[in-house]
Amino acid sequence: MTRRVYWFEDLTPGTVLEFGHYDVTAEGIIDFGRQFDPQPFHVDPEVARSSLFGGLCASGWHTASMMMKLWVENYLAPESSLGSPGVDELRWHRPVFPGDRLSCRITILESTPSRSRPFMGSVRQKCEVYKQNGELAMSLVGIGLFRKRDAATA
Amino acid sequence: MTRRVYWFEDLTPGTVLEFGHYDVTAEGIIDFGRQFDPQPFHVDPEVARSSLFGGLCASGWHTASMMMKLWVENYLAPESSLGSPGVDELRWHRPVFPGDRLSCRITILESTPSRSRPFMGSVRQKCEVYKQNGELAMSLVGIGLFRKRDAATA
Repeated sequence: MTRRVYWFEDLTPGTVLEFGHYDVTAEGIIDFGRQFDPQPFHVDPEVARSSLFGGLCASGWHTASMMMKLWVENYLAPESSLGSPGVDELRWHRPVFPGDRLSCRITILESTPSRSRPFMGSVRQKCEVYKQNGELAMSLVGIGLFRKRDAATA
Repeated sequence: MTRRVYWFEDLTPGTVLEFGHYDVTAEGIIDFGRQFDPQPFHVDPEVARSSLFGGLCASGWHTASMMMKLWVENYLAPESSLGSPGVDELRWHRPVFPGDRLSCRITILESTPSRSRPFMGSVRQKCEVYKQNGELAMSLVGIGLFRKRDAATA
């Protein structure tokens, strides 16, 4: 299977990309929680039941990391992706539970060629992470750096 | 060892908390990268050497997750921490390499009692993640929800 490579020129404002899915498991939630976010509602199903969330749920950083996995599989190709300086408006709208299936919808908001580095440009993108039932689990607005197709073939 | 519990009332604007450390390893970077962010510069030391980063470096989401581990060990106690709706201004200032030792500096910017839920309040906090040499690796401004001490002892 040949994967699609998105170059800077492809990511014009208004472009929408939809992809996924990532299946969330209790084991995955607890593994991540033990390593990085061992609050009771991320590692202990018993205690989680009486928490504000009503049950074991994924660390917000785990949800962001699962989103990232989908990005790397579907959006950020090694030929063109140059990393990111940061993210704004990261929001955890709803808890993510075992059995949830996550997918992504990316909307390109702005694209700006780099002045100092003519082979690349930056893209401001919104990403919404949805559950299988259409509920919004997480969203963010971030910057992505992409190589130009021109530069790659020059 | 009894750990300090920070209640909403403790987190007044201007409060500064410093804690850490987290030792970053190549194994940890590659493990996280393979699971969640398998871009070459996070999983392949050879290829990483010729990337923009100059060597194998941690996924930005891994750095955020390592920060979270420090928060849970030092700042967010199960008695008082009620989660977070989101984060703004997340910035990855410098790549995080194997051998780096990360620590946190939190500054409380605002604190607002909840109107609808009198037992708690929200705090706007800045967190800076530093390396052992004083370089800023990552920063963010986020919201944290905390139970009131009053509510706990009432």
